[in-house]
Amino acid sequence: MKILVINAGSSSLKYQLFDLDTEKAIAKGVCERIGIDGHLKHTPLVEGKPVFNEDINLPTHAEAIAAVIEKLTSKEYGVVTSMSEIGAVGHRVVHGGEAFKGSVLIDSDVMATLEECIPLAPLHNPANIAGIKACASVMGDVPQVAVFDTSFHQTMPPKAFMYALPYKFYEELKIRRYGFHGTSHRYVSRRVPQILGIPGEDLKIISCHMGNGSSICAISGGKSVDTSMGFTPLVGLPMGTRCGDLDNGVLQYIMHKNGYNIDEMINILNKQSGVLGVSGVSSDFRDLEEAANKGDERSALALEMFFYSVAKVVGSYVAAMNGVDVIAFTAGIGENSDTTRAGICEYLTYLGCHLDVEANKVRGKEAIISTPDSKVKIMVVPTNEELVIAKDTMEIVKGRK
Amino acid sequence: MKILVINAGSSSLKYQLFDLDTEKAIAKGVCERIGIDGHLKHTPLVEGKPVFNEDINLPTHAEAIAAVIEKLTSKEYGVVTSMSEIGAVGHRVVHGGEAFKGSVLIDSDVMATLEECIPLAPLHNPANIAGIKACASVMGDVPQVAVFDTSFHQTMPPKAFMYALPYKFYEELKIRRYGFHGTSHRYVSRRVPQILGIPGEDLKIISCHMGNGSSICAISGGKSVDTSMGFTPLVGLPMGTRCGDLDNGVLQYIMHKNGYNIDEMINILNKQSGVLGVSGVSSDFRDLEEAANKGDERSALALEMFFYSVAKVVGSYVAAMNGVDVIAFTAGIGENSDTTRAGICEYLTYLGCHLDVEANKVRGKEAIISTPDSKVKIMVVPTNEELVIAKDTMEIVKGRK
Repeated sequence: MKILVINAGSSSLKYQLFDLDTEKAIAKGVCERIGIDGHLKHTPLVEGKPVFNEDINLPTHAEAIAAVIEKLTSKEYGVVTSMSEIGAVGHRVVHGGEAFKGSVLIDSDVMATLEECIPLAPLHNPANIAGIKACASVMGDVPQVAVFDTSFHQTMPPKAFMYALPYKFYEELKIRRYGFHGTSHRYVSRRVPQILGIPGEDLKIISCHMGNGSSICAISGGKSVDTSMGFTPLVGLPMGTRCGDLDNGVLQYIMHKNGYNIDEMINILNKQSGVLGVSGVSSDFRDLEEAANKGDERSALALEMFFYSVAKVVGSYVAAMNGVDVIAFTAGIGENSDTTRAGICEYLTYLGCHLDVEANKVRGKEAIISTPDSKVKIMVVPTNEELVIAKDTMEIVKGRK
Repeated sequence: MKILVINAGSSSLKYQLFDLDTEKAIAKGVCERIGIDGHLKHTPLVEGKPVFNEDINLPTHAEAIAAVIEKLTSKEYGVVTSMSEIGAVGHRVVHGGEAFKGSVLIDSDVMATLEECIPLAPLHNPANIAGIKACASVMGDVPQVAVFDTSFHQTMPPKAFMYALPYKFYEELKIRRYGFHGTSHRYVSRRVPQILGIPGEDLKIISCHMGNGSSICAISGGKSVDTSMGFTPLVGLPMGTRCGDLDNGVLQYIMHKNGYNIDEMINILNKQSGVLGVSGVSSDFRDLEEAANKGDERSALALEMFFYSVAKVVGSYVAAMNGVDVIAFTAGIGENSDTTRAGICEYLTYLGCHLDVEANKVRGKEAIISTPDSKVKIMVVPTNEELVIAKDTMEIVKGRK
């Protein structure tokens, strides 16, 4: 079965077409500047087909989907002969609130609930909904499935998801920890047991998703029991430009001193903070490493703060689960930066957790990077959120889930 | 030498008179409703002297100090024959910013710097300053010493005290983690090595100060290396009425939904949140335990959240120090609630940290409450901030510090 995976943003739309017989993507691409002017880069992943990379007119998400289908089925750039070969579409949806504990087949009830979740993700959910509507308008009644960034974390117990606020804020405004990157953490939670040949039910895993956005997830018996992002993706670790955990008293102080309103303040915390704010150099860890190596102290501090923050969250999740078997690194930084992994693991030898310096030299490949005698396995597990979405979609469409 | 210890609030003034030959307080008391009408409760701690407990006129802190001195030296209620027996006054001062790394003899330069720290603690520092000025006006040139809640934490490294914000907020507005309860954590850091007969330099201690306000401190080699309160005392653990750690994005959401300004919002986070907010029952842990035992689910949740939060911070500090030798409980809840200590320690057996159920039945007394084979010592260490202030004051006045 072939499954089209869609990740729709407000002015962009990323896609991959999967052949689930092989579990490989056979084409991928991205529409950009939707509603502004438009550009499509389409990359067939089969031999002998050229890349399409041109400006084209994309007034709405519907035109974008139409252009994607046209390319997927065209003689020159295509990888299927007709749209009927695409058995279903799987959509990444950012926020499922408390309504969705897992992926779902989209129908009119689901659409209504997705609309209700918009206040929880005002930038992302409307774009995801636009992507779903665009597919319906172009592809007719091909089944569509929603896969949520939040749903993997719906297994968290109340002690982990509740904030110590007046209870009415939970009842009336749904204020709680939701967590994000759930599809990635779920991928890690499934892949680690496969690699080790140990049932997931028997494992305590700490999944460190470290990219431009970063979050950590405590996974016990295959289920998320805690995660570092919260009601929004602003908190937990310091990120490229996001502040991570921060005393709320700081907001009051800065807002009064500098005359900011809350939106201006949160915008600074989202876009000008994190390792960029500390270093003044870059939000990209590669730039920071280069600058730190040349002696830039604030870049070195930003990296040191990141390592320390990750180690502290890992330590807190070892306590949360009263133990840990596997620490897994994933996403851009987690998969590629051996210095970051080493900087974090330095703190963790009290767990009997020992990094193998040679094995750690890996980039972007599955690997066990702890020493053979390490009590805790340290692993690199490149994430594949699109594959999770494609597989969920197929299973739901086949009625298996 | 006799030392008067003063803790001045905006409308209250607590005091203890110490005899440092015995390290015991010989009188204590509190002035209340200063500037409103006035009340003094004075309690001599020597045999044969009655308690004074009456409304008296206290228009300012100066009248309060005058009334305290009058009682301390009176025939009926007194414990010294004249004011000249009081060798020095030690003041608790909440915020010393980055200026004060330890306790100091107060002179005009110090007073000027204390004034500069007012924006960092706008409610507390002005009251502390009023207490100092009142003593100077009533007691003439008796030496006065300032002991700060923040100064013990000035040994934290930048990776622990910096926030991942634009760097200018640190440079221009002094936004950083300061931490509080420093005098209490310092007491624990000194007392634990004495009890165990092990030099402080060789110990990694996690000090859990749990009272109406709660904070945890990681102490390595006698020095604070991290602590859970931040720029303000609002963060870290959930407390009686304070929220502890909370996604900043939540503030933006609630403020827009409910039309609060930042001061109204922070006021809710300070006064209506924490275990009171979650339970809807009480900010007092004894009430919560009683309610939970009777089946109140939200009270049980509030307690569970507190235990879990403490365990997570402890876990994070074990990572921060790459190990731990001692976990010490202090302050009202830490000294008296065996169920709280047990609820926290349940999470920590992965450290080889084992509570002795019988030994844990202690209240308000120094005790080792771990099993003999526990790899980590668990201790109850009742705090004594006033004694620390008295001893600091004496040492500074004698020129020993």
